[in-house]
Amino acid sequence: MTTIDLNCDLGEGFGAWEMGNDAAMIELATSVNVACGFHAGDADIMRHTVELAKARGVSVGAHPGYRDLHGFGRRPMPGLKSSEIENLIAYQIGALQAIATAAGYKVTHVKAHGAISNVACEDDMTAKAIADGIKAVDPNLIFVVLANSKLVRAGEAANLPMVHEVFADRAYGDDGLLVSRKKPGAVLHDAKEIADRVVRMVQDGAVVSVTGKVIKMRTDTVCIHGDTPGAVEIGRSVRQALKDAGITVAPFKTAVS
Amino acid sequence: MTTIDLNCDLGEGFGAWEMGNDAAMIELATSVNVACGFHAGDADIMRHTVELAKARGVSVGAHPGYRDLHGFGRRPMPGLKSSEIENLIAYQIGALQAIATAAGYKVTHVKAHGAISNVACEDDMTAKAIADGIKAVDPNLIFVVLANSKLVRAGEAANLPMVHEVFADRAYGDDGLLVSRKKPGAVLHDAKEIADRVVRMVQDGAVVSVTGKVIKMRTDTVCIHGDTPGAVEIGRSVRQALKDAGITVAPFKTAVS
Amino acid sequence: MTTIDLNCDLGEGFGAWEMGNDAAMIELATSVNVACGFHAGDADIMRHTVELAKARGVSVGAHPGYRDLHGFGRRPMPGLKSSEIENLIAYQIGALQAIATAAGYKVTHVKAHGAISNVACEDDMTAKAIADGIKAVDPNLIFVVLANSKLVRAGEAANLPMVHEVFADRAYGDDGLLVSRKKPGAVLHDAKEIADRVVRMVQDGAVVSVTGKVIKMRTDTVCIHGDTPGAVEIGRSVRQALKDAGITVAPFKTAVS
Amino acid sequence: MTTIDLNCDLGEGFGAWEMGNDAAMIELATSVNVACGFHAGDADIMRHTVELAKARGVSVGAHPGYRDLHGFGRRPMPGLKSSEIENLIAYQIGALQAIATAAGYKVTHVKAHGAISNVACEDDMTAKAIADGIKAVDPNLIFVVLANSKLVRAGEAANLPMVHEVFADRAYGDDGLLVSRKKPGAVLHDAKEIADRVVRMVQDGAVVSVTGKVIKMRTDTVCIHGDTPGAVEIGRSVRQALKDAGITVAPFKTAVS
Repeated sequence: MTTIDLNCDLGEGFGAWEMGNDAAMIELATSVNVACGFHAGDADIMRHTVELAKARGVSVGAHPGYRDLHGFGRRPMPGLKSSEIENLIAYQIGALQAIATAAGYKVTHVKAHGAISNVACEDDMTAKAIADGIKAVDPNLIFVVLANSKLVRAGEAANLPMVHEVFADRAYGDDGLLVSRKKPGAVLHDAKEIADRVVRMVQDGAVVSVTGKVIKMRTDTVCIHGDTPGAVEIGRSVRQALKDAGITVAPFKTAVS
Repeated sequence: MTTIDLNCDLGEGFGAWEMGNDAAMIELATSVNVACGFHAGDADIMRHTVELAKARGVSVGAHPGYRDLHGFGRRPMPGLKSSEIENLIAYQIGALQAIATAAGYKVTHVKAHGAISNVACEDDMTAKAIADGIKAVDPNLIFVVLANSKLVRAGEAANLPMVHEVFADRAYGDDGLLVSRKKPGAVLHDAKEIADRVVRMVQDGAVVSVTGKVIKMRTDTVCIHGDTPGAVEIGRSVRQALKDAGITVAPFKTAVS
Repeated sequence: MTTIDLNCDLGEGFGAWEMGNDAAMIELATSVNVACGFHAGDADIMRHTVELAKARGVSVGAHPGYRDLHGFGRRPMPGLKSSEIENLIAYQIGALQAIATAAGYKVTHVKAHGAISNVACEDDMTAKAIADGIKAVDPNLIFVVLANSKLVRAGEAANLPMVHEVFADRAYGDDGLLVSRKKPGAVLHDAKEIADRVVRMVQDGAVVSVTGKVIKMRTDTVCIHGDTPGAVEIGRSVRQALKDAGITVAPFKTAVS
Repeated sequence: MTTIDLNCDLGEGFGAWEMGNDAAMIELATSVNVACGFHAGDADIMRHTVELAKARGVSVGAHPGYRDLHGFGRRPMPGLKSSEIENLIAYQIGALQAIATAAGYKVTHVKAHGAISNVACEDDMTAKAIADGIKAVDPNLIFVVLANSKLVRAGEAANLPMVHEVFADRAYGDDGLLVSRKKPGAVLHDAKEIADRVVRMVQDGAVVSVTGKVIKMRTDTVCIHGDTPGAVEIGRSVRQALKDAGITVAPFKTAVS
């Protein structure tokens, strides 16, 4: 029986501000990545999000980002040293672990956010620092890595359990990597097209690149965005299409490297 | 054999800014309270401070404060709800726990900082929320409470292990509480006087109030300040006086309520 | 001919986060109060909001708050000194003035936000510090003061031009002050009722208190909220009712104390 | 009569934290660049620093940086758009202008801080955005530009009055630009050597590069650092050497492009 995890970033408000439709998205996801206060999120939102996840039986992961509330963690910060990245990853994981403990739940995984993740996908130092930061806190935490990126090797080197992630709504190049958002066609918007694509990714273990090439890709979890236009509709479409294809949607809790 | 712990707040810089003389103070303290990023401190300073403490065999505690970098956590924030206080306490403890784990060390205690502590000493809701926040993360964490304050009852209600703290350089009223800093004579400055006072506190289990009254006071740990003028000299004077009086200076690691 | 100003707080997002429906509200207001970066807002949102206001010919004011992004400036910060309040008011006004200049527009007024305003309405020190902060930057800036509050006397003492403000959707006590939000009935929600109330306030120069008493109240501007449920509908209802009553809606640019 | 300005960055503390020895440095400088709250500084420190400068008759300039308190504005933030840079420059200048007005003084110039300045020295977009941000607030503000950098052309294009700056304690390459701090010998530490170098820069309008080449360099102001080891001693040495050489030290108030 084929199973797949659907992951979604949640808890990305801050104080009085909200982001996306968490209540709707948590109905669709089987694991959630919770912002930890550096790019978004705060202790109260984290608590609330963990409680939502616990009530739904959904896996909770830390979603650490650069210290950049104003830029939502989407701006590269190339001046950070390796040790600084390791420490900010550890800090954010620990903060969420304590909040999860307080809520009677548990952090199972870590997925880096935004610019720190994008940079790490192409930069060995950053990728290694993220993996080392996770491992230093708990070597049993599952590292969610973008398939084919430098995060994979960093996770292997740190001997972390890993799940490989693909994006439901993003175009892939022939190198198996995401096409830059700056390029036309980088982001897919049609719910039906996205859903079909996800089914094929899971069934075939492959994705069709922008040039039409079929690229093998290990797919343990599919990222569904919560803060884009039509996010909820797309998520529902993906979830329904997987069901129609007889694919079970479930958290990746048993996943190992 | 009489023993006493000397605790000091450390790691209260932020980014490029420093506060106090941590390197000197850690030679004098037997337990340190590490700022966790809300009123001061950041992941890198926390890591460095934990490593300093580990190298010296000194106990490490979390020193959570209000979210107020600009005010150094010294401004009351009466608008916070109980759940918000509980969550910010949990968040900060968890962040330090992860940093300590990354450094191969352990968080043993929690001491609230500045205004959130001052408010809690007189406000049941805040005191309870701090105690509940600690307990929710780990009921074995030692709660450092100001002797005779509302923190004591809150810690008892939460059934937390506790150590009672007195201040080396502060005047006490007949009620066994600190005299407000706004009043003349509230803060002692003479190193010899402070040292003599500490020895008597530890030997007699009592403090002499501003009116000359002898007040019984459980004394498990003495707070020595690191960011006041003459801090290092005062700390050395206290430590020497304790030694001269045959009192052993050691962390409170075995302390229980 | 009777005229009235309708003022609305705008630009209260931060970075990637939005608050309220600025595009809709600016169609209804004749003056807007722009968040200046301490409780909400940032340089980009300020610029965008000023440009919106300029395009509509709407007056722009500074809307300074406590330094408290996380609490949206709604938490009292009683620890601030008079000079600190004066400086934070000046800083925020200046920041908006420069942004307005860059956009080819002008700041005409100042209205304090949230907790700093609420505190000032009852606290002479805070009220005076706000007025002094405004005057120190430019004594010609119009000070928007809650009718009957301590802001009025502070503005008079500073000899600032003032406009008196009433709230469209808030209940008033017999003392002419707002009923605390914590009390039932403090906030009105029915668009028709609110609109009728505003018309009577403007026509009669009086408001009916919660006990039914008619209280004289100078009314130069009516605050319409942008971030409450039904805000846009309420604003439209108020504007239409004023039109139906033959009352001209226009900025208070000629107002003086 | 030869005259030169000595400029120094001041007011770079934040809240309870201090940086450098402002009281000593202001005795040595003839113009000061005041941090505006993004990388360092706050409304109270800005006020205090302006008052210090006013008391000494020293020129006050804005010293805007990236929004990065944690990194002290020293980390590149390449993700910022041109309009975002322009707005953050305008915001910070305006904030200081209002504080200066409140203190009965005036902002005469602008010098960018840290990473945003370093990036701009080599990046046309950033340099232009800074210049445009200044011009948008007040085209009469003097733009302090690093000699030979891209800031010069940007200032010319914006038609801003400019003063060219050299660094007292930094090595120069054959291209007339600063040698990267990462390279050995990039920073000079010997007070006597630095002082001699400054005298020659001012007298000859030239600097000797690391390879021994004499490079013509317009020198209107010399930057003396306040936060490096030996800063005060170096500053005194420079000032004395200039006096001994018969060079008048005075603010660049009459400087034009």
